[in-house]
Amino acid sequence: MKSWEKHIKLFIPGPVEVYPDMLKEVGRPMVGHRSKAFQDLFADTTEKLKKILFTENDVFLSTSSATGVWEACVRNCIAKKALACVNGAFSDKWHSVALKNGKEADSLEVDWGKAIKPEMIDEKLSTGEYDALLFVHNETSTGVANPLYEVAEVMEKYPDVMFLVDAVSSVTGMKVEVDKLGIDVCLASVQKAFALPPGLAIFTVSKKAYEKAEKIKNRGYYFDFFVFKKYLEKNQTPTTPSIPQIYGLNKQLDKMLEEGMEKRFERHKEMADYTRKWAVERGFELFPEKGYESDTLTAVTNNKGIVVADVIKKLEEKGITISNGYGDIKEKTFRIAHMGDTKLDEIKELLEMMNEILGGG
Amino acid sequence: MKSWEKHIKLFIPGPVEVYPDMLKEVGRPMVGHRSKAFQDLFADTTEKLKKILFTENDVFLSTSSATGVWEACVRNCIAKKALACVNGAFSDKWHSVALKNGKEADSLEVDWGKAIKPEMIDEKLSTGEYDALLFVHNETSTGVANPLYEVAEVMEKYPDVMFLVDAVSSVTGMKVEVDKLGIDVCLASVQKAFALPPGLAIFTVSKKAYEKAEKIKNRGYYFDFFVFKKYLEKNQTPTTPSIPQIYGLNKQLDKMLEEGMEKRFERHKEMADYTRKWAVERGFELFPEKGYESDTLTAVTNNKGIVVADVIKKLEEKGITISNGYGDIKEKTFRIAHMGDTKLDEIKELLEMMNEILGGG
Repeated sequence: MKSWEKHIKLFIPGPVEVYPDMLKEVGRPMVGHRSKAFQDLFADTTEKLKKILFTENDVFLSTSSATGVWEACVRNCIAKKALACVNGAFSDKWHSVALKNGKEADSLEVDWGKAIKPEMIDEKLSTGEYDALLFVHNETSTGVANPLYEVAEVMEKYPDVMFLVDAVSSVTGMKVEVDKLGIDVCLASVQKAFALPPGLAIFTVSKKAYEKAEKIKNRGYYFDFFVFKKYLEKNQTPTTPSIPQIYGLNKQLDKMLEEGMEKRFERHKEMADYTRKWAVERGFELFPEKGYESDTLTAVTNNKGIVVADVIKKLEEKGITISNGYGDIKEKTFRIAHMGDTKLDEIKELLEMMNEILGGG
Repeated sequence: MKSWEKHIKLFIPGPVEVYPDMLKEVGRPMVGHRSKAFQDLFADTTEKLKKILFTENDVFLSTSSATGVWEACVRNCIAKKALACVNGAFSDKWHSVALKNGKEADSLEVDWGKAIKPEMIDEKLSTGEYDALLFVHNETSTGVANPLYEVAEVMEKYPDVMFLVDAVSSVTGMKVEVDKLGIDVCLASVQKAFALPPGLAIFTVSKKAYEKAEKIKNRGYYFDFFVFKKYLEKNQTPTTPSIPQIYGLNKQLDKMLEEGMEKRFERHKEMADYTRKWAVERGFELFPEKGYESDTLTAVTNNKGIVVADVIKKLEEKGITISNGYGDIKEKTFRIAHMGDTKLDEIKELLEMMNEILGGG
């Protein structure tokens, strides 16, 4: 058996565990992407996506990782200068994607583990220097959920600033009401709380974002909003899409709507609460600033000096895994994902195993 | 049953039919993309890709359609002006992708159905105006296989011109020896002759292409050669990749190497020969210029005035389908794909059904 053929159950923050019912959908025979059948699939999928994203805006499927949609955001929405809110590895990378695309972008930085506060954004935007805000809702590297709803209130004061929100590891695990929040572009990825294999990103585009993009030259082709829009009118994607992931997405959306979105958010909160409580009871501290802990993953500070890599190795021998800290905070933190199709009982089982490995005290 | 859940066997030029053994691979449980298991999968896959592409150059996996790699080519390899060889819908689109990325690009155009000849390219390049050639090996819209090997000979005279080859619908069905041909970037897509679901593109980068790219600003992030290269050194992809397609690719490469590449090319040629002979015997003409017919798909001229849409409808009632002509040559041509895992017997069966539908004479 090849190393990648061994099934280790994933409690890492993406790709998350994909359950057999979804893997079955992913393995369906192909349809032509210019066929009526695909158009039906596309229309049905995007209609359901609008529901779970609480939006009437156009919803697009991008055959790329979410990083591709970061590039879409910066190429379509920055004419002057962007303000990138940075408090972790992913928000930092989005900033560098803007710069690498030849765009001007400043960063509003706070320490990893701290949250980006609305007043910080307000202060920066009040200078009038910026025409776009790059805001990561849920920092997968630190487990911080930045205060999206409070930031959205501030953004009401700046209607000319594009509100670009990476909700990659929050959407469907935490409530993100695109229209109510006035989000211009909201992006997500299917290998997080959607619990599907990676290879497909999702994004919404507001009227204001189209108006902005229209005035921006050199948007490229692959991530140009208007290329996506042209094909959306035919219920198609501009280029051959990752059909297996779309099959899965369609069925997963049915499951979500059946569960009910509020219940789904509650389930994620319950798993998060349980995990945080476990960590604190074991004498660990939570890495995120108090009150800003994510509901889809828990980042734990390794204040007890355990060897995280060893713990993970032992978990993997039991057929299960979690994540070490990201980059510079490897071994200083560890991360447990609780999102997608994962149930509270499975989290309990995981933490029981952790208890066994960590021993008494 | 939803329309997309009905299995219609595909003889269209992409996505092609994916057989049950590959669908099974695609439906495997996930691994983390930063795990040792994924690194093993990546290393094993890219090593085998080098064999089937006859190259020692770096080989990359892009979570995008091949269109994304077109964008990579134009952003990384055009400093001055490109010459785009245009004789169909896809080569034309590549030209427009260059322009949309703010690059200068002229087109060398011949009528759809005609091939791009080496002397045409020679004449244009001899002006010294160009620093990149956009060359589509196999035009999926017209069934023309442009003379790659003869063009490569001409390209030897122009070592400073990037030789960028779209081999999307030829690679593994027709021989493309990347190193021998001096191809700087060769790109392919897994939903064609690889017989896998779409969602993953493959490309090679030569030393010369790196040297060129190094001097070009604003390459972006998602398709920047150097971002790919940085992660290649760790046997990883820059961003979360389409893992199901990589699972399939790895196993499909085993199958290919087991079949033997020469035998595989022969099988494709046999299917092509049979299909062309069938068309001519039924009184049809072949759409491509004589001597430039593709071995992976046959484009047939509808000189007999059949209603192609009706024929396809009847085929679909029998659980099978082919493609109408592309764009402006819809109804004027039709296309039968014979690539990937398809066997000669299946082509015979398809054409027998066509005979039944078309009737005598």
